[in-house]
Amino acid sequence: MTFPAHLFRPVGERIGLFVLDGLGGLPHPEQGQTELEAAHTPNMDALAGRSSLGRVQLLPPGMTPGSGPGHLSLFGIDPLELEFGRGLLEALGSDYALEAGQIAARGNFCTVDGEGLVQDRRAGRPSDEECRRLCAKVTEQVSIDGVSVELIPGKQHRFTWIITAGDLGAQVNDNDPQVTGKSALPFRGQNATSETTAAIATEWLAKAQQCLADEAIANSALLRGFSTRPHVPGFAEKYHLHAAALAVYPMYRGVARLVGMQPRDAGRGLDDQVAAVKAAIAEDFDFIFVHHKDPDTAGHSGDFAAKVAAIEAFDQAIPGFLESGLDVIAITGDHSTPTIMEEHSWHPVPLLVHSKRALPQPEATFGERACMQGDVGTIRGPELMPLLLAHANRLDKFGA
Amino acid sequence: MTFPAHLFRPVGERIGLFVLDGLGGLPHPEQGQTELEAAHTPNMDALAGRSSLGRVQLLPPGMTPGSGPGHLSLFGIDPLELEFGRGLLEALGSDYALEAGQIAARGNFCTVDGEGLVQDRRAGRPSDEECRRLCAKVTEQVSIDGVSVELIPGKQHRFTWIITAGDLGAQVNDNDPQVTGKSALPFRGQNATSETTAAIATEWLAKAQQCLADEAIANSALLRGFSTRPHVPGFAEKYHLHAAALAVYPMYRGVARLVGMQPRDAGRGLDDQVAAVKAAIAEDFDFIFVHHKDPDTAGHSGDFAAKVAAIEAFDQAIPGFLESGLDVIAITGDHSTPTIMEEHSWHPVPLLVHSKRALPQPEATFGERACMQGDVGTIRGPELMPLLLAHANRLDKFGA
Repeated sequence: MTFPAHLFRPVGERIGLFVLDGLGGLPHPEQGQTELEAAHTPNMDALAGRSSLGRVQLLPPGMTPGSGPGHLSLFGIDPLELEFGRGLLEALGSDYALEAGQIAARGNFCTVDGEGLVQDRRAGRPSDEECRRLCAKVTEQVSIDGVSVELIPGKQHRFTWIITAGDLGAQVNDNDPQVTGKSALPFRGQNATSETTAAIATEWLAKAQQCLADEAIANSALLRGFSTRPHVPGFAEKYHLHAAALAVYPMYRGVARLVGMQPRDAGRGLDDQVAAVKAAIAEDFDFIFVHHKDPDTAGHSGDFAAKVAAIEAFDQAIPGFLESGLDVIAITGDHSTPTIMEEHSWHPVPLLVHSKRALPQPEATFGERACMQGDVGTIRGPELMPLLLAHANRLDKFGA
Repeated sequence: MTFPAHLFRPVGERIGLFVLDGLGGLPHPEQGQTELEAAHTPNMDALAGRSSLGRVQLLPPGMTPGSGPGHLSLFGIDPLELEFGRGLLEALGSDYALEAGQIAARGNFCTVDGEGLVQDRRAGRPSDEECRRLCAKVTEQVSIDGVSVELIPGKQHRFTWIITAGDLGAQVNDNDPQVTGKSALPFRGQNATSETTAAIATEWLAKAQQCLADEAIANSALLRGFSTRPHVPGFAEKYHLHAAALAVYPMYRGVARLVGMQPRDAGRGLDDQVAAVKAAIAEDFDFIFVHHKDPDTAGHSGDFAAKVAAIEAFDQAIPGFLESGLDVIAITGDHSTPTIMEEHSWHPVPLLVHSKRALPQPEATFGERACMQGDVGTIRGPELMPLLLAHANRLDKFGA
């Protein structure tokens, strides 16, 4: 369901969206409480009794979101409607939001023998530092007329390959043969603009091989997942919001950039984020996305106590966030990461929306089972933004 | 919404889907509890406190499903998207799943006079035994070159007419004039392959009339609802599940066959079904559908106590099912059959999903109103299968 664009007001109150990564959990097998229920969270519990509560379902029942789709869903985009190339994900993960006219691909340094057969698809897994050296060397020495080529180093053999030229298509095959002992595949484009991309990739690879000829191991490269920037309406265009992103980890800044948020320095964690929210408000941002990674990390480790502690640390920052001048405060997750599963799950995430237009249940606390009984019910991810805009008095009524 | 096919894992845990036919009910006018709430179900109540609860809505609000559509919805197919010929329903009801290249129609034996005018559209409602004799006689004596014709006897004057030949269409009119004193209508096909079917039906009817010329009453036949097998992806193809069906009644085996389940001997009822689940697990089935008919039968009779007893009988079988080696146990209905209505109804059916990934409310019991408060919420029928697959660790996450 598309929200009629004319309902979004250009003015209104300030919204803070606090995403506790992997917030949702499942009961501890012995004591029966979830991580959030077990955590000592006096500030969020007090807030819950003055807030609307509910749950957010990021994807259809049973479908578990990765972090990218989870955030996109919260940001108002149905991830299933979006074409998501691997190259785009790599670029976002490097805090790089593709622009129109750019193509990204996932790159591997690799080893080829004298006959051009791939001997090692990962070039012996070089160190991150070695990867940075190789990327810098190729970026410096390889040039193509009329095309800008950028290599963003990743972990070990991985890099993101980004080209900027005129009208480029992304319907280009991977050249990775997937097995060793074979040649890399030639690049072919499936239409005219993709042929242009394929020709650039071919020329770049030949020149990169010349540049890397003196390397003992990493003497060639493989490219896959050619992607363009998907058409995603930005927060300014879609919601009339001037939006900032305060995320410590690059992946989340990348996804925020994709929807037109402006990353600001989030420092190293919650204390810095409290200060950064105040700074962003001083900069006149009217939507501020704050990302807190630690609950997810603890969930993946299967460490119940660590996830509880990560939630409690966030709770300690609540007074600072409350003082900062935000009118609407939403607290939720991008997916569940139950410690008993040690991975993401499909379970809907708890949601708290604090504003002067909330319908609280005064005895409520913030937890999975309390949120099931909340006034918001269970909404789909892309329904969250309109709800927050409504709480911020940023939506006109529909019809007379 | 289509679930991306690549998310379905080929391996995972074992799922048991227990369908209590017509499970959902409405409160008794005097004591105020539904049949399920009034039933003494210690085993399901104990399970409820360790399970996810919710409700399944088989069709849009207010729309009451027949048994076929109710089961298809549970099996992941939107019944409103499926073309459902009467002939197909008859075939399924006889535990006969049409194959590609087959056509089914609903047949009636009838009586025609010397001028070919239909005098009795039901041939005086012969006994079931008489129907079996007539079907056997026609099947034996009537043959058509290159075509296999099968008559499956039903109740009284009813039979299912199934032909197997090459490429056959089903766009053929009924020949039933609907009133007595008129001739049966000629068969016509609306396209080339349906013309072939019409020609076969015409030839078959002429030969059947010769064969039946010595019968005092049932001397002709009427055919309606020509149907092909609809394109329905099977459980193996769609979900990577090796699925067995344990249903005592042929209709439910037929619907299960349609989605690629393999019927196994379910004996005469619950005790046999407990043994059959164990046998199916020994056969390495990883999805087992168990159908329990009695609650629906009692609901149709308007017999509240009998429906309560039918539910209690199922509850007594729970320990056996729990021991059998299933990892995920789902208990639900294919529709509601409230005894105060004496027929199917549109009310969503209760759902219990037991797995180690559930989010229970420890005080919950299994009943319509407890399920309204459950963590699953109210899901649509076709959303059930993905949820069960998620509980069985058979779904990959979406995106990185």
